[in-house]
Amino acid sequence: MTNQALVLPWQDLHDFTKRVFVRLGLPEQDAVTETDTLMWANLRGVDSHGVVRIPWYVENTQNGIMNPTPDIRVTVETPAIALIEADRAFGPVVTNQAADMAVEKAREVGIGWILVRNHTHQGTMGQYVQRIANHDMVGMIFVCSRPNTAPFGASAAGVSNNPLGLSAPAGRHPHLILDMATSLVAMGKVLIARERGESIPVGWGLDENGDPAIDPRALATLLPVGGPKGSGMSLLFECMGSVMVSNPLVLPVLSGELSEGKTTGSHVGRMARHNQNCVVVAIDVSRFVDVEEYKAQVDQLIDRLKERPKAEGFEEILMPGEREERFYAERLEAGIPVPTATIAGLRKVANDLNVEFIRGVA
Amino acid sequence: MTNQALVLPWQDLHDFTKRVFVRLGLPEQDAVTETDTLMWANLRGVDSHGVVRIPWYVENTQNGIMNPTPDIRVTVETPAIALIEADRAFGPVVTNQAADMAVEKAREVGIGWILVRNHTHQGTMGQYVQRIANHDMVGMIFVCSRPNTAPFGASAAGVSNNPLGLSAPAGRHPHLILDMATSLVAMGKVLIARERGESIPVGWGLDENGDPAIDPRALATLLPVGGPKGSGMSLLFECMGSVMVSNPLVLPVLSGELSEGKTTGSHVGRMARHNQNCVVVAIDVSRFVDVEEYKAQVDQLIDRLKERPKAEGFEEILMPGEREERFYAERLEAGIPVPTATIAGLRKVANDLNVEFIRGVA
Repeated sequence: MTNQALVLPWQDLHDFTKRVFVRLGLPEQDAVTETDTLMWANLRGVDSHGVVRIPWYVENTQNGIMNPTPDIRVTVETPAIALIEADRAFGPVVTNQAADMAVEKAREVGIGWILVRNHTHQGTMGQYVQRIANHDMVGMIFVCSRPNTAPFGASAAGVSNNPLGLSAPAGRHPHLILDMATSLVAMGKVLIARERGESIPVGWGLDENGDPAIDPRALATLLPVGGPKGSGMSLLFECMGSVMVSNPLVLPVLSGELSEGKTTGSHVGRMARHNQNCVVVAIDVSRFVDVEEYKAQVDQLIDRLKERPKAEGFEEILMPGEREERFYAERLEAGIPVPTATIAGLRKVANDLNVEFIRGVA
Repeated sequence: MTNQALVLPWQDLHDFTKRVFVRLGLPEQDAVTETDTLMWANLRGVDSHGVVRIPWYVENTQNGIMNPTPDIRVTVETPAIALIEADRAFGPVVTNQAADMAVEKAREVGIGWILVRNHTHQGTMGQYVQRIANHDMVGMIFVCSRPNTAPFGASAAGVSNNPLGLSAPAGRHPHLILDMATSLVAMGKVLIARERGESIPVGWGLDENGDPAIDPRALATLLPVGGPKGSGMSLLFECMGSVMVSNPLVLPVLSGELSEGKTTGSHVGRMARHNQNCVVVAIDVSRFVDVEEYKAQVDQLIDRLKERPKAEGFEEILMPGEREERFYAERLEAGIPVPTATIAGLRKVANDLNVEFIRGVA
C-alpha cells in the first residue's frame, strides 16, 4: 500500500464489481463476464480498462446507452460468417459470444468471420484474441468508433484510432497477443500525462485549433501512427466494420448529425454516448498444420527473437503481450493497486447503488 | 522526354515485357498476367515495382528461383478457406488465382480466406485488393518475407516489413486502396535517397552496427512503424501466413540456416533467393448490406473527409490510392517515363534473350 493506492486482492475487487453489475440489471452470467473483463485488464496492468471505468459504466447504463438486458440476435449467417445485432449490449457480453461463434465456425470450415454491430465498450482487445488462441486458433479483432484521430493531411478528427488485436497460440511461451490502436499513442498515455501534469511530445496530437498539443489537457485530436498508414487502416476498418453493417460511426459525425468523440474534458464526457461495431475472426491452425508443430515453431521464433542484439536503451526484447503476462503473474498473488481517487469513485457507486463495498476497505 | 528518361506509350512497354516473359518460358496467359502487374505499377507511378524489375526477374528465372511453369495445387480446401502450394510461381500468376478463388468463396459463404505458400515476388499489393474491390467486395492481403526490419527493442533484423493491402469498393470515387508496409518507410524510399545521394532521417533504419543510418547506402535494417505496433503486426503476420503453412521465413534466418534478406548492396542482390507466403481475403458486401447503399456511403465518407480542415503543409487530403489513380489517368495518355538507366538494363535483357526491343526505341 502506498500513499496513493490501496493494494487489493483481485477476488475482493471481483466480488464488488460483480455486485455492481448485478445491481445494474445484468443477468448473473453477464455480470460475471463484464467483471472478468475488468479483472483481465487490472491484473495485466492495463488499469485504464479496469475498475476505474465502473462509474462510467454505471452512468451509461442509467442513461440508457448501455443495455443490461439486450436482445442479441444473429441477423445474417453462413457456415463461415455472421452478423450479430448487439442491441447496445455491454461489449464483453456480445463479443465473447462472437469470439465463441468464430471458433465454432472455424472448427467447421477453417475460419469464422463475425461482425458485431451496435455494441458498447469492450475493454481490452487482448482478452478476445487470447480467448481464441486458447482454442489453438489464430485470432483477430478490430473495433470501429467515432472519430478521434486526424486523417493524414487533416488538422481535425476524421477517423477513429480503431483498436486492433491479433493473436497466435504458443506452447511453452504465453500466446502472442498484440493489442494496439492506429493512433501513434493510445488515449491512456495522454490521460496519464494529464494526471502527472507532464507535457507531451509533438506528434501525439493536436489542439482544438489544429496546432500541436504540448499540454495534454489541450489535446483534442490524436494523430495516426505512421501518417497515411494508421490513417488508412482506420478508414478501411470503418468501411469493413461499420459501413458494412449499416451502422456508420464516422460519416454522421463529419456530416454534423452526431457530435465528435471528444478527447477533451472528463474521461466520462469523452466516452459518453458512444456506440461501436467490431469484427472478430478465428482461423483454425489444425486445418493447415499440426498444432503441436505450430506451437513449437512459434516458441522457437520467440526464443530466437529474444536473442537478437538489443537496441540502445533496451535490456530485453519483449513479445506482444509479454509485459501484461508479467503483471498478471505478479498481481494474481500480490493484489491490484487501486489509486485512492479510483477508490473514492467506487465508494460513491456503492453508496448510490446501495451495494456492499469492497471487502476489507473501510 | 527529359535528359534522364524516355517517355514511352504503355502499350509498347507492355508488348516488350510480354515478349520477355514468353521467352522466359511462361505460358502466354501467365506472361500477360506478369506484364499487367508491371504495367499496373508503372502506370500508377509505383515505378519501383514496374519494368525496372525485369532484369531481376530474368536472373531469378534463369537461376531457378522463380518458376515459369509451376505445378500450382490446392492442398487444403473448405467452402471458406484454401491453401495453395505455389511451387515458386511468379507472384501475380498464383495471387490472381488466389484472389479469384477468394471472390468465388465469398460469393458462396460470405468470405474467402486463401493462404498461398512458396511463391515469389508479387509486385504491388494494391492490384490484388483492387481486383477484389472490382467484384463489390472488401479485400485484404498481407505478405510474409524474410526479415529486413528490427523487432521493437532490437538493433538488427528479426521481422519482415510485411506489405499489407486493404480495399473497399466506392461508387463515384475510385475504390479505397491502401497499400502499405509495416516499416516506417518502404525500401523504395531508401533506394530513391541512395540514387539522389541524399541523407535519410533518424528513425528510418539502422546500419550494420545497429546505429542509426543517416547515409542510405549504410542502411542494413529498416525500423518498424510505431515501434511495437509495426513490429507486432509483422510478427503476427509471420505466424498467420508462414508458420501456418509450414514455410517459416523468419525462424530459419534467425537460426542461421538461411541468410538475411539484406537491404545493402544492389537491388538484385538484396532480393535474391527470396521466397514468400501470403494471405488473400475477400468479403462479400452484398451479404451484409445493399451494395449500392454501401458504395454511396463510402463516397459520402470520402467527400466529407476531403472537406476536413487541412494540416499545415497540406493543400488537400488524399484518400488511400488516390495519388496512384491520378498517375494512372495521366500516364495512360501521356506515357510512362522510363529512366535511361532502366532502358539500358532492358536493352541488355533484349540482347541476352534475343527478343525484339521496345518499339520505337533506337
